[in-house]
Amino acid sequence: MRIIKKIDVMRKFSLAEKKKGRTIGFVPTMGFLHAGHLSLIKKAGKRNDIVVVSIFVNPAQFLPNEDFSAYPKDFRKDALICREESVDVLFYPGRKDIYPAGFSTYVEETSLSKSLCGGSRPGHFKGVTTVVAKLFNIVVPNTVYFGQKDAQQSYIIKRMVSDLNMPVEIKVAPIVREPDGLALSSRNKYLTKGQRAKACFIYKALKIAEKRVKKGERSSAKIKAAIRHVIEANLRGEIDYIDIVDTENLKPLKKLKRKVLMAVAVNVGKARLIDNIILKPGR
Amino acid sequence: MRIIKKIDVMRKFSLAEKKKGRTIGFVPTMGFLHAGHLSLIKKAGKRNDIVVVSIFVNPAQFLPNEDFSAYPKDFRKDALICREESVDVLFYPGRKDIYPAGFSTYVEETSLSKSLCGGSRPGHFKGVTTVVAKLFNIVVPNTVYFGQKDAQQSYIIKRMVSDLNMPVEIKVAPIVREPDGLALSSRNKYLTKGQRAKACFIYKALKIAEKRVKKGERSSAKIKAAIRHVIEANLRGEIDYIDIVDTENLKPLKKLKRKVLMAVAVNVGKARLIDNIILKPGR
Repeated sequence: MRIIKKIDVMRKFSLAEKKKGRTIGFVPTMGFLHAGHLSLIKKAGKRNDIVVVSIFVNPAQFLPNEDFSAYPKDFRKDALICREESVDVLFYPGRKDIYPAGFSTYVEETSLSKSLCGGSRPGHFKGVTTVVAKLFNIVVPNTVYFGQKDAQQSYIIKRMVSDLNMPVEIKVAPIVREPDGLALSSRNKYLTKGQRAKACFIYKALKIAEKRVKKGERSSAKIKAAIRHVIEANLRGEIDYIDIVDTENLKPLKKLKRKVLMAVAVNVGKARLIDNIILKPGR
Repeated sequence: MRIIKKIDVMRKFSLAEKKKGRTIGFVPTMGFLHAGHLSLIKKAGKRNDIVVVSIFVNPAQFLPNEDFSAYPKDFRKDALICREESVDVLFYPGRKDIYPAGFSTYVEETSLSKSLCGGSRPGHFKGVTTVVAKLFNIVVPNTVYFGQKDAQQSYIIKRMVSDLNMPVEIKVAPIVREPDGLALSSRNKYLTKGQRAKACFIYKALKIAEKRVKKGERSSAKIKAAIRHVIEANLRGEIDYIDIVDTENLKPLKKLKRKVLMAVAVNVGKARLIDNIILKPGR
């Protein structure tokens, strides 16, 4: 496995591989890899000749009051994991390579990014789309893999790719969960033992809501109240949002129809935890 | 010459040519081609195997009160000109191909775009960078040619390419002028005979200013006053701006130093005319 830090070296590598007719699967990450990332890397490996993983904790997607400097890091362990997974290149650029002095160009999705996490983290997705656009231009992948845990992010990136005619394909892989249901996240590290034990109730709440939808409930207000009830009864946390949105435009729905995204964000101690279920309620 | 209207056909063509090892030179235009465009097309032809010209009057770069619907068009003549110049592909997409329903992603340069034309046409350069980013992803060129008449645009696009790591090279070609000095522009068509006769005084004013700089004048205020004087004495028009900026950051300078851009915008009748000179005043 090559570890590449320089942008021009990374691009040269990719273009040379592509010239040989090889396909490149790309998994962009912020490091501190867990089984969720692993599932993406494995998918990339199955369907591409070359797998590139990037590790870059992107300052542009953190708000001033957020955990940028505290974000967990373990490059040695990450590199070991990648090596074990037969990753071809670990791209590990420095902050000044990605954002040199005078940097002033941003990519912004202006519709899907307004609700859910975009509502409580203004500017977050602008940071995400900007760095992802850069990484696409540097790594020149055929296919890029994202996790459904960041569901809104994956919708926004698909929209960006389509709107800006980027020559890449986006694949979204299912959420990987702990045995008790907690969605894997690098930020789970922030949880105390007690918080961790209760954090599974976020997913349990979503599953209870899903059951109610399957039994015929179509009122967003009622389903959201049910989710809120389960979380508040079991978890010491501050609910950021509980929302049910149309997967087409990520706008809140009063009545469930077609395909919906039920999404939750809860601040538990130092960790902002998000989770979601996509479901088709039918008529 | 092929005329291609569909985005996916355009990209397939380019990727196939590149696979054969051919280089692609690209000249993006809004059509109504004149000798300025021709100089770009000729440059592209000299240094590339394949030349692609695009014609798309980009609604996103016009402000609501501007001349989008009146912008001059003559596709048949443009196609003839391109054919004569041995252009390989004329890319002529429709508005809905470029901006389909639900389009919501924009590329914005946030520093260089604030002064000069960016000051009087807020949102204009966001429209430019967005469509240019799209065209780069569709045409996949090696080198792209812009004219120095839109000097600020060329600086902004170079910054965008650098900031977003776009794998293209930008070349800027000198302004092509009428015998009396007027910079060629599709918008010159809006001028009445009388306005046209006087429009050359914009360039004459810049040349007089250049002379004063060469003689040692370093005060921006004095040079700008000289330009204003020549224009106001000879031209019935409304001066939008006269400015002297550092070519590094496009910020106004009080004293001329290093490399400066002297730029002027004047509304003459229905035409917004711009012109500029880049010069190195020395110490």
